[in-house]
Amino acid sequence: MSESVMEAVQMIRVQLPDGSVREVAKGTTPFDVATSISPRLAAAVVIARIKPLSLETIEGDASDPEASEAAMYGAATSGERLVDLTAPLTEDVSLELLKESDEAALKVVRHSAAHVMATAILELFPETKLGHGPATDAGFFYDVYRETPFSDADLAAIEARMAEVVARDEKFVREEEPREKGLEDYAAQGEFMKVHFIERFTHAGESISLYKNGNFTDFCRGPHVPSTGRVKAFKVTSVAGAYWLGDEKNQQLQRIYGTAFFNAKDLDAHFKRLEEIKARDHRVLGKQLDLFSIQEVAGSGLIFWHPKGGLIRKTMEDWMKSECIRRGYEMVYTPHIMKRELWKISGHEGHYAENMYPPMELDDAEYRLKPMNCPGHILIYKNSPKSYRDLPVRYAELGNVYRYERSGTMHGLLRVRGFTQDDAHIFCTPAQIEDEVIGCVEFAQSVLHTFGFAEFKVELSTWDPEDKKTYTGTEANWNLAIESLHRALDRKGIPFRTIPGEAAFYGPKIDIKLVDVLGRLWQLSTVQFDFTLPERFGLEYKGEDGEMHQPVMVHRALFGSVERFFGVLIEHYAGAFPLWLAPVQIGLVPISSDKHLEYAEKVKAQLEAAGLRVELDGRNEKMNAKIREFTLQKVPFVLILGDKESATDSVSVRTRGKGDEGSVPLTTFIERTTTLLKDRSATL
Amino acid sequence: MSESVMEAVQMIRVQLPDGSVREVAKGTTPFDVATSISPRLAAAVVIARIKPLSLETIEGDASDPEASEAAMYGAATSGERLVDLTAPLTEDVSLELLKESDEAALKVVRHSAAHVMATAILELFPETKLGHGPATDAGFFYDVYRETPFSDADLAAIEARMAEVVARDEKFVREEEPREKGLEDYAAQGEFMKVHFIERFTHAGESISLYKNGNFTDFCRGPHVPSTGRVKAFKVTSVAGAYWLGDEKNQQLQRIYGTAFFNAKDLDAHFKRLEEIKARDHRVLGKQLDLFSIQEVAGSGLIFWHPKGGLIRKTMEDWMKSECIRRGYEMVYTPHIMKRELWKISGHEGHYAENMYPPMELDDAEYRLKPMNCPGHILIYKNSPKSYRDLPVRYAELGNVYRYERSGTMHGLLRVRGFTQDDAHIFCTPAQIEDEVIGCVEFAQSVLHTFGFAEFKVELSTWDPEDKKTYTGTEANWNLAIESLHRALDRKGIPFRTIPGEAAFYGPKIDIKLVDVLGRLWQLSTVQFDFTLPERFGLEYKGEDGEMHQPVMVHRALFGSVERFFGVLIEHYAGAFPLWLAPVQIGLVPISSDKHLEYAEKVKAQLEAAGLRVELDGRNEKMNAKIREFTLQKVPFVLILGDKESATDSVSVRTRGKGDEGSVPLTTFIERTTTLLKDRSATL
Repeated sequence: MSESVMEAVQMIRVQLPDGSVREVAKGTTPFDVATSISPRLAAAVVIARIKPLSLETIEGDASDPEASEAAMYGAATSGERLVDLTAPLTEDVSLELLKESDEAALKVVRHSAAHVMATAILELFPETKLGHGPATDAGFFYDVYRETPFSDADLAAIEARMAEVVARDEKFVREEEPREKGLEDYAAQGEFMKVHFIERFTHAGESISLYKNGNFTDFCRGPHVPSTGRVKAFKVTSVAGAYWLGDEKNQQLQRIYGTAFFNAKDLDAHFKRLEEIKARDHRVLGKQLDLFSIQEVAGSGLIFWHPKGGLIRKTMEDWMKSECIRRGYEMVYTPHIMKRELWKISGHEGHYAENMYPPMELDDAEYRLKPMNCPGHILIYKNSPKSYRDLPVRYAELGNVYRYERSGTMHGLLRVRGFTQDDAHIFCTPAQIEDEVIGCVEFAQSVLHTFGFAEFKVELSTWDPEDKKTYTGTEANWNLAIESLHRALDRKGIPFRTIPGEAAFYGPKIDIKLVDVLGRLWQLSTVQFDFTLPERFGLEYKGEDGEMHQPVMVHRALFGSVERFFGVLIEHYAGAFPLWLAPVQIGLVPISSDKHLEYAEKVKAQLEAAGLRVELDGRNEKMNAKIREFTLQKVPFVLILGDKESATDSVSVRTRGKGDEGSVPLTTFIERTTTLLKDRSATL
Repeated sequence: MSESVMEAVQMIRVQLPDGSVREVAKGTTPFDVATSISPRLAAAVVIARIKPLSLETIEGDASDPEASEAAMYGAATSGERLVDLTAPLTEDVSLELLKESDEAALKVVRHSAAHVMATAILELFPETKLGHGPATDAGFFYDVYRETPFSDADLAAIEARMAEVVARDEKFVREEEPREKGLEDYAAQGEFMKVHFIERFTHAGESISLYKNGNFTDFCRGPHVPSTGRVKAFKVTSVAGAYWLGDEKNQQLQRIYGTAFFNAKDLDAHFKRLEEIKARDHRVLGKQLDLFSIQEVAGSGLIFWHPKGGLIRKTMEDWMKSECIRRGYEMVYTPHIMKRELWKISGHEGHYAENMYPPMELDDAEYRLKPMNCPGHILIYKNSPKSYRDLPVRYAELGNVYRYERSGTMHGLLRVRGFTQDDAHIFCTPAQIEDEVIGCVEFAQSVLHTFGFAEFKVELSTWDPEDKKTYTGTEANWNLAIESLHRALDRKGIPFRTIPGEAAFYGPKIDIKLVDVLGRLWQLSTVQFDFTLPERFGLEYKGEDGEMHQPVMVHRALFGSVERFFGVLIEHYAGAFPLWLAPVQIGLVPISSDKHLEYAEKVKAQLEAAGLRVELDGRNEKMNAKIREFTLQKVPFVLILGDKESATDSVSVRTRGKGDEGSVPLTTFIERTTTLLKDRSATL
């Protein structure tokens, strides 16, 4: 103290979110600031976010999704970063004191939970060596090395010991020491992975940071919650094998997964949501409802549509085709293979070859499977001269494309190697762009609405005018296209987010992401401008002025991929499809397969005549067993047919999700269901 | 005479078609017999057909297509053969005296016409060397060698000189001489091709036959009409180049084509038919009506369906899919590429590799484009256990398959490398075969009927039980399958022709050939048995007995190939499609683009609301020019809209093929057209 008294106490400025500024001594911690505001606040805060005031004053809106996403990943945008509550403040800063409810705090407590887990592991299994233990979107993990695999019982023991570490409420204390000391100490302990990380992530002469809680010390950048006691709700979930540094010649590590929250309610909700996601897994439902399969003997990422899935696909495609025709599109069909020469003209050989299947040599030419339908549509456009009177030309195709994806990256219907694009290309004059874009956006909205999605988000991806290397096309064209897209969205009153520098090299685009029943975002529809292909293929039309002009080209897909959209539909509806999409719409259960079969056949014939898809279970089985089977198959309506029903030409209705609705005349039921069908109703 | 009197005159028996038998002296000619019957007959006959009575008595029905086809190609079935009227009869024979009206006589006169042409050529261009000059289905040709190419003027001169040769009415006289003398004479004349033919087709020590007319002699087997005067109607049509013996290192020959008939009426009809065939050429109409294209830059044999062709395809496919569903088929979709391993299991790698596209290597597997859909459907069948209750399983797919065809063998839509099969596979118990075959045949009949074909021919291709090398499967299975097919056709009362030894190696089949408006046969529908694939893939179902059994598999395609069927449709209708298939069903022509456009728009909206496809020509062009354009596009109905029509809510109707039908109320016209649509009427 005597020395420090000699110095003048240096003061710094701390600006709080409400704009007020406090002068505090340099070295004051965020916790000190919180305490000075109120002891209650001090007890509630878990972490602090600071930003040097020498940079711009923070004006970010906390509700801005970009800002919060960045914060969640701990990204230090504009010098902003999270720090421990005990970190001394050393310069003028803006300061936010984050409570448990703050999204950014969740990742911190999960990181702290990883330390708690490591503490528990070393207490129980001191021979274990540590890798790294980061927070993730869903929780955290720690990579560790131990010859003996961890059993389920071991995981339970670790979880129990973690509870003890939490109960001990050990403070997380940050310390710094010379890098060389850290390397020496870890090497002496045989902690080969820690040695590796220090060598990789720090430089000679630097000091390294360590976080201690109780007897446990970890090389770590932090930050952490104040103490282990803040890790209130957690679970060790699983263990999986992984090779050190991903190399199978190295030691096999064990990655122990867990998750953590600030309270038990959130933890419960998390597992409930996981269960819900699992119950909706389209791969599981696809098998259970016999919708599709992937046959490894035939190949990876290739979909086999079974009869029931095929029926849904046909229904989706029939709707899409008739909508296309209604909206002035013309259906075309182009081959699945085309000469390599053509892919050179289109630029795919140059820019897209790594996503394409290898060439097939035939006679004197090489052929490649099409990864896109554009060149095919362009050849049809070029096949006859076009005038301004012919434009806009709108070619649509349910085109089967094949794109190479690395082994092991495929995922059910969502990531495949072969898929069906509901692809269309619009060739129009620059003056027509805006109306065409509006047409596409309206069509996309109609798709989402028809298939039962209420919510969607729109992004407008534009170029970076400075980056001439990445983007082709003139500034005038880019501006025209971006303005057209912008104006079209404005005219439709659709809110959107502009993302500069996210456009494809050949033009700006609108992405429409739908929000499913679990709130998940799915990128499906795209409306994409293209200046490049019309030029590469020398497309033309004769203008009103008698001169030849180059048309603008718009690529657009609304389902995106029929396969992927179907996968999203399965998960969105958890396999309980609306009536118009359900492969079997009505299940018939005669109470006695002897006495009531005749009436059941009659009902079936009448329902089928009304255009309904019916399955009659005429087996000599118990009524309840038959009902159960139809219920498991998520059939919208099950009709029970007994003496009373056959005597009165009625049906006893069990509606999916509603249960027994009693008897109604068959004609009434037919009226109800045909109306649902006609309306493509999302509910029953 | 003195010597011959010494011998007893040897008599032979000649049986006439009416069964009567005449005893005549050996050496009597058919002409003698004809003369003995009536001088008028002798003047009318052109050629004779004989068959030794030592073989069975001829019982062939002249209307039997097999017999007449064989006769047309001059095939000597059962020792039967055509001979000159001047040929001495040397044994007991049955004798038919053929007149000009007989089909077999046509080929003879064409062959004689080739001699007449050769006579004319040598008279005009004596330096010419002769190859061979056979009759063909469409006429005849003569291959000749001459350094100078024949010009159109030369061909006209040849045709004129032929008329002189015919006018000279030179008798065709058959002579025989020793082979060696013939070789010597021809060699001396530098007739290298004749030398080649004698060496190739005759043996040392034999005599050869020569036919002479006037000063012209040709090495020839005959027979011929009695004299050049019988070649009454002929035409030299064209000349084309060909290498001697097909080897481009040899001399280049000129093949001079012509055709000939017994009378001018038949000749005219022939050229009219050729014109009709040309006018119906689907490649020409495909371009003219903007239906499809083949883009050499993209590849050979690959079809691009333009909007109008695409609309017809969609209409065809929509009908096919809904019929499939109505008939208990289930629509499936399978990938276009599958691993090579799978094609090994299916046997395609062994038996069909030369028709497949080369493999594409990807990660550690090789993939091939599918040439057939069967393995895909089999994998779906195998994906879940099946019981006898599930059978028959009927999977249908509009599957895009790719098969290698040699460069230069492609022909429009009729022979392509990529096509769409309306493919289905039925998996059933042996007891179900017959009903399933009947179902397929009825479905095929419905396809032909719906698309406007009244006539078809059915062939049943069976195996050769002796040829165990070619055919797989047990005798019992073959017999069961053949009997089932046989019985199914009998039950349907469908006449058919059995062709032994024409089955595929894996099972017997029914081929259905449709007859188009020009009487041409087109092979499209096939119902094909398969014992092999169920075994190769180990397909099973649990029988009523609780044991596992192997199902029978039926491959069937009704369009065969959507592309090919479309090609046949274009030619059958000469592009004038029935209303339901026409891409534009109604053309609207407002008389004044100012005054009547509004009414035209109103008519358009009403017609479209009724489900009709309408094109309104609102350009400021002459009415007649607009009508002409719609007529060239073969639009079924053109409606003229003027003052009178707009005042009375009526339309003035021009019907394709019928012309101006006057004014009718719009509602009447809508009723008429929607009825035609609903009925898929083949006529307007």
